[in-house]
Amino acid sequence: MEYFSSRRTCRNFKITEISDSIIRDMLRDAAHAPTTGNMQLYSVIITRDTQKKAQLASAHFSQPAYMNAPVILTFCADFNRFTRWCKLSGADPGFDNIQSFVAAALDATILAQQFVTIAEMKGFGTCYLGTTTYNPDKIAEVLKLPTLTVPVISISLGLPEGPLPESDRLDVEAFVFNETYPQIDDETLLNFFAEKEKREDSQKFIRENKKNRLAQVFTDVRYPRSNNEYFSKVFIEFLKQSGFMTD
Amino acid sequence: MEYFSSRRTCRNFKITEISDSIIRDMLRDAAHAPTTGNMQLYSVIITRDTQKKAQLASAHFSQPAYMNAPVILTFCADFNRFTRWCKLSGADPGFDNIQSFVAAALDATILAQQFVTIAEMKGFGTCYLGTTTYNPDKIAEVLKLPTLTVPVISISLGLPEGPLPESDRLDVEAFVFNETYPQIDDETLLNFFAEKEKREDSQKFIRENKKNRLAQVFTDVRYPRSNNEYFSKVFIEFLKQSGFMTD
Repeated sequence: MEYFSSRRTCRNFKITEISDSIIRDMLRDAAHAPTTGNMQLYSVIITRDTQKKAQLASAHFSQPAYMNAPVILTFCADFNRFTRWCKLSGADPGFDNIQSFVAAALDATILAQQFVTIAEMKGFGTCYLGTTTYNPDKIAEVLKLPTLTVPVISISLGLPEGPLPESDRLDVEAFVFNETYPQIDDETLLNFFAEKEKREDSQKFIRENKKNRLAQVFTDVRYPRSNNEYFSKVFIEFLKQSGFMTD
Repeated sequence: MEYFSSRRTCRNFKITEISDSIIRDMLRDAAHAPTTGNMQLYSVIITRDTQKKAQLASAHFSQPAYMNAPVILTFCADFNRFTRWCKLSGADPGFDNIQSFVAAALDATILAQQFVTIAEMKGFGTCYLGTTTYNPDKIAEVLKLPTLTVPVISISLGLPEGPLPESDRLDVEAFVFNETYPQIDDETLLNFFAEKEKREDSQKFIRENKKNRLAQVFTDVRYPRSNNEYFSKVFIEFLKQSGFMTD
């Protein structure tokens, strides 16, 4: 159980191949994780071919954690397979809507996280690529995804190269509440984040980005409003294109 | 590692209390799971008070896995805390959009699944309640959720009562593909589901619901189009109400 409180994300990987059977064995185990109505509303595409990986790089902004990794796994919310099965069985499926997309996205995310836990417990390093929902259209084109199939998570997989930096976390009191969400006054809320802002890595982050406060690094550099709004439009457009928003 | 390939969902629980500290310890460990930009875009509400649990029951259609459990955890996509911190720090947050909701929903789901793994490894039983995204408005009202906070997953927690039934899963070849999503012909696709349909529990399910095929139980009884479409409207309406869809 010690794994859980000490796990760290890996962004640098050794140049070693990982066999298909090892990955499939881990995904087979991960698929015992819970899934909506046992429908298994997901697909996983394994990218290891050099050319395919290069085609996909721009969709992930060629970030180091993508470029370094020998294997990329793309976890897709997938209602295509189940819908086809229903039609071939003389049933009338109605999964071309947001509620069905959400169920499939949760299924894919649960599978991805179970895979991450299994892989890390076996000594692999992993990194979630948050860029997946920014460029679902580009990813779908390269991976030839059919309708009702939306990439939601990509994971870099490999053997860790070098030490893994520790990440701080908020105190559990900041995000776990009994019975109802409490009224939180400003001072208490600022205190939740005080330790995080004081850390040397946060201060370095503020200086490097020429900001005064850590929050400004998040709002002005990492996740600015204009990006969030642009990629929201892209995402909704792709949900329509994929068939999950029909009205 | 044997846990992963043999885990099962629990729907019947012993009538035993679980201390707050045990739950918080597990959530503290679970929070070391990956999170978008280390923003920890989630909150968890613990329901154990009899009156609160009764108020929340209709939102989960009073299903046995809800009614039986001594504790319910509601995992929320939460950009409220982070947005307030940004504003209090003189930063200009722009997280009132779908891309930000998706990031927070993934964070909440990853935390929930990591919690489930930790709890089950410690001997607890858990069950995901798929009803959470059907009735986010009712849940938000009972739990007094603030803006930019959307319930995405609820989990029943308790000590298992009686044996846990095994769930079948598709062969890994049905959902894991190398490099691109392949063209799958009808016969191959039907074969993916053939074992599932033959199972005695599936056949019983078909007979009980007076259907001819297993797929029809899913489309006509469990997840009919009219429900999916109705609850899609409710969900989108709640995203607007919560502040995640501002245009």
